[in-house]
Amino acid sequence: MTDLLFQSFDAATRPEDGPPRLAALRARMAEAGLDAFIIPHADRFQGEYVAARDERLAFLTGFSGSAGLAVVTADEAGVFVDGRYRVQVRNEVDTGHFTPVNWPETQPADWLAERAGRRAVLGFDPWLHTEAEIDALRKRLDGAGVKLRAVENPLDAIWEERPEAPHGEVRLHAEHIAGRTAAEKRGQIAAILRDENQGAAVITLCDSLAWLLNIRGDDLLRNPLVQGYAIIDDDGGVQVFAAPEKFGAEVRGALGAEVRIAPLEAFEDALKGLAGTVRVDPKTAPQAVFDLLSGAEIARADDPIIMEKAVKNVAEIAGMRAAHLRDGAAMVRLLAWLSAQPPASLTEIDVVRKLEALRREAGAYNISFDTISGSGPNGAIVHYRVSEASNRAIGADDILLLDSGGQYADGTTDITRTIAMGTPEAEAQAAFTRVLEGMIALSRLRFPKGLSGRDIDAVARAPLWTEGRDYDHGTGHGVGAALCVHEGPARISRASEVPLRAGMILSNEPGYYRRGAFGIRIENLVVVSKAEAEPGREMLGFETLTFVPIDRRMILPELLPGAARDWLDQYHAETEARLAPMLDGPADKEARAWLTAACAPL
Amino acid sequence: MTDLLFQSFDAATRPEDGPPRLAALRARMAEAGLDAFIIPHADRFQGEYVAARDERLAFLTGFSGSAGLAVVTADEAGVFVDGRYRVQVRNEVDTGHFTPVNWPETQPADWLAERAGRRAVLGFDPWLHTEAEIDALRKRLDGAGVKLRAVENPLDAIWEERPEAPHGEVRLHAEHIAGRTAAEKRGQIAAILRDENQGAAVITLCDSLAWLLNIRGDDLLRNPLVQGYAIIDDDGGVQVFAAPEKFGAEVRGALGAEVRIAPLEAFEDALKGLAGTVRVDPKTAPQAVFDLLSGAEIARADDPIIMEKAVKNVAEIAGMRAAHLRDGAAMVRLLAWLSAQPPASLTEIDVVRKLEALRREAGAYNISFDTISGSGPNGAIVHYRVSEASNRAIGADDILLLDSGGQYADGTTDITRTIAMGTPEAEAQAAFTRVLEGMIALSRLRFPKGLSGRDIDAVARAPLWTEGRDYDHGTGHGVGAALCVHEGPARISRASEVPLRAGMILSNEPGYYRRGAFGIRIENLVVVSKAEAEPGREMLGFETLTFVPIDRRMILPELLPGAARDWLDQYHAETEARLAPMLDGPADKEARAWLTAACAPL
Repeated sequence: MTDLLFQSFDAATRPEDGPPRLAALRARMAEAGLDAFIIPHADRFQGEYVAARDERLAFLTGFSGSAGLAVVTADEAGVFVDGRYRVQVRNEVDTGHFTPVNWPETQPADWLAERAGRRAVLGFDPWLHTEAEIDALRKRLDGAGVKLRAVENPLDAIWEERPEAPHGEVRLHAEHIAGRTAAEKRGQIAAILRDENQGAAVITLCDSLAWLLNIRGDDLLRNPLVQGYAIIDDDGGVQVFAAPEKFGAEVRGALGAEVRIAPLEAFEDALKGLAGTVRVDPKTAPQAVFDLLSGAEIARADDPIIMEKAVKNVAEIAGMRAAHLRDGAAMVRLLAWLSAQPPASLTEIDVVRKLEALRREAGAYNISFDTISGSGPNGAIVHYRVSEASNRAIGADDILLLDSGGQYADGTTDITRTIAMGTPEAEAQAAFTRVLEGMIALSRLRFPKGLSGRDIDAVARAPLWTEGRDYDHGTGHGVGAALCVHEGPARISRASEVPLRAGMILSNEPGYYRRGAFGIRIENLVVVSKAEAEPGREMLGFETLTFVPIDRRMILPELLPGAARDWLDQYHAETEARLAPMLDGPADKEARAWLTAACAPL
Repeated sequence: MTDLLFQSFDAATRPEDGPPRLAALRARMAEAGLDAFIIPHADRFQGEYVAARDERLAFLTGFSGSAGLAVVTADEAGVFVDGRYRVQVRNEVDTGHFTPVNWPETQPADWLAERAGRRAVLGFDPWLHTEAEIDALRKRLDGAGVKLRAVENPLDAIWEERPEAPHGEVRLHAEHIAGRTAAEKRGQIAAILRDENQGAAVITLCDSLAWLLNIRGDDLLRNPLVQGYAIIDDDGGVQVFAAPEKFGAEVRGALGAEVRIAPLEAFEDALKGLAGTVRVDPKTAPQAVFDLLSGAEIARADDPIIMEKAVKNVAEIAGMRAAHLRDGAAMVRLLAWLSAQPPASLTEIDVVRKLEALRREAGAYNISFDTISGSGPNGAIVHYRVSEASNRAIGADDILLLDSGGQYADGTTDITRTIAMGTPEAEAQAAFTRVLEGMIALSRLRFPKGLSGRDIDAVARAPLWTEGRDYDHGTGHGVGAALCVHEGPARISRASEVPLRAGMILSNEPGYYRRGAFGIRIENLVVVSKAEAEPGREMLGFETLTFVPIDRRMILPELLPGAARDWLDQYHAETEARLAPMLDGPADKEARAWLTAACAPL
């Protein structure tokens, strides 16, 4: 049975491992003359996932969350975690030796400044922090007289039995799905560099590398990435720095002679050898890259690939559409199956397992992130990840929040549906209807070209706001085309100032959470597209990619404005028209009947 | 008849005056070694209105618009005007000698840099430009090698028969309307200075001065202001620099000994004599102030009065409410009168005159700005100001856009209604209904504390956006309490980052304009107030101040969402309940009947 599963449900760290490792680290720190050392969760690629070899924070402290950091002094070891992990951290670390700290309310620099004497030295590994991060840290520590020092990582030195670096095989991302050849993309980026008088750019983000070369990898858990760096010249030539054994003959042949592959270890010398103007992104590239570029003039600017990757071409959008239909069919089979189970017969993990099996049958080679399957009060925990310990029997009248996605060869999906298992409370229905109203308002919206996510975020929230409610997460994030499910730079959020552009793919996922009771979120992916406008104006809108019924039992129709009702009926009609032909397997009879019923007008 | 009128309808400048003045200015510039000189519309107080004595731009060029500037070189004289004035400028200036320039598309610095040689000298009057403005100008000119030089104004030197400075009498603004005594306000600002370790602040905005001392004046056209500067110390003592003869015995007595009054001419020496840390606002204070503060350490920060003034107290809000009811009764009398006139019997000016007479009868001592009375295609000119030349006979089925306001002892009003004179086109009704939907959505909105106007602007626009339409002005501006009708710092606009605070008064005025056909705008004033919210959240909302019927003949009810219809019916019920008791004069019988009909449910 486990071979069917992508997701695991147990924790891997042991609190008792922490103290001896902490003691060994402190001995190394003392030898190196460090009063403190900082251990981030991030690795040298600054992605969302790190390989087992790079789980430094978990190795030292036991804390296994997806974000956080530790600051170790001779007497104390602060483990900085955000609101999601306040409970988890206390179960995972030995609190006799490690002190959980509320982050970002308490900033590491301020915490350290209170403890360190003037002229104390804080060591950091310059490969694990961006230049922007180190600049901000330095500004905060300057007043306290604490000095920052880049050092060889003392934690790595004490890490015996450290896992190997991942060695996933590199595969080609088909050109008909990418929409452009790797050579065309190299030319596209080179042209940007020439326009800005830059001789080369250093690329340190793995998803930028994957996009540029039309490759996918298997080095990380949910993101189809190859760990590696690159330098691209203004003539389109690329040096890749990644384990050469990952690149088979077919891949090498497709990449061609203008893409040279060297071991990751050759990167430092290559940086030292660079001359002329070299573009590096201070927000994403490690501090070490800047330190090594001693012979070049550094042009600080965004990674030139980020925006090109965010604006999807016609072929990428077509691939995303196709993947969403297959994924939608899998979701419909899941929802039909759910509705056929006896009341109160399932756990949250049962749902995850069934959904993963159906996604695999639909062609997914991975899930795009760990499924959030939160029933009743667990649904109110925004970043809930079910474990064997938290796994809950879903009650007969519970509400189930199911946020999940698949990785397909041609697309990445991310969908949330909130499902009434039986008869939902009227209060939950009222909240669901307001969330739906906001989600539909954003789906229907057109807006002037030039606006950012910040300028339209209110449209999704206004129905909740007007009842004195809100949700404490963004309304939407960027999504990669058959790449990472969380992709920059655009978001729909109060904090996002990046103008939206036609071709960007984003999620639209307002929610509402009542602690201890239920959680609601409704999420479709949408692509920004040109919209009709009166003469003299340029407007954008959203085209929906996700087609899966929205649970009509959760809706109080009299609360929904007429235009929203019309949108929903139209959405359901389209959902049935698109998915019914895909439910043609021998076992799909029930799913098809369920789909028809679920797509009936309100 | 003219004694009833506040507004004039004719232009005052003559194109033929420009060329000889331009020649005289150039002679002075040559003597002073200037290659160019810049003449802004603004005076030394940076307010919305300037006195006749300060109409330098009109004196030189003939251009009488409310914004703009001129740059004069030995060969050319560019008159920079924005979109509102592209036609007007060509009627008012001699285009053989003056070149109209599209502004802000073309920036004065860029225009000049193209014309001036390296090492050219651009003269400016340091009293007429803020430091921020000069900084921005300098940055743009640096690349071209053009130098900026502060000079005695050469235009003033050639201005014979220049009007006297205004000498409006200063009157007291009653304490029960201000809600705080001037002594309390002085203490309030002094406490801010002490908190920020500033020994004094220089106040250069006339509305800040009026608020601080609870005084009103008569120096400018529509703003009840006294021209003057002030220096306030951290002990609350104030030196006022303004013509002493404006201050009568009663006013002097009320201001007390801690407020010393000196002539405006004493300001320079007072600045030179200041020591310690002095707060000055680079966005509003003249460059000259910074230059003269040679003995002090300058703390650059917002004028400390701006935010205190923007957040109205209970008494100020009560005064605004009361003034809005009297103003609303005047508006109802106007609308009832309008509906009783024979078809096609009025001009735009007739409406302005009638409305002003009714406002005066209702107690207004001034109008708060020149009434915009735009019928048919004139309604589509956003900043239309009717003149004898443009005055139009209002057609039987025209739409009339009427944007106006009054100055009362206890409040300032600003209201726009769009009125169907007969049977409106369905297309105009559809647009009106969308504008109304946005205006109501904003009226009903609650939103989290901490958001700025930018974060909620979309709520008012979304109904238009979703049809590919928009309007090219802000959704709302700040309004003073019995002060200036346009008041900073908060706005509801894409460009406003100032967090909204309970007590701020703003306009809510979405619109829609079809060039050559019609203009629509609906405007109420609202006050930001605390709103109910679920536990753990702080929300704000808007309480409406303006009560005047919204023309139901302009609405297509089937297009309006149910919640908006409910809001409108409730608004009209409240409007009738509040205004009916005020329509108790012998001539009010028709107005009262009209009100009842106009307030019927949709």
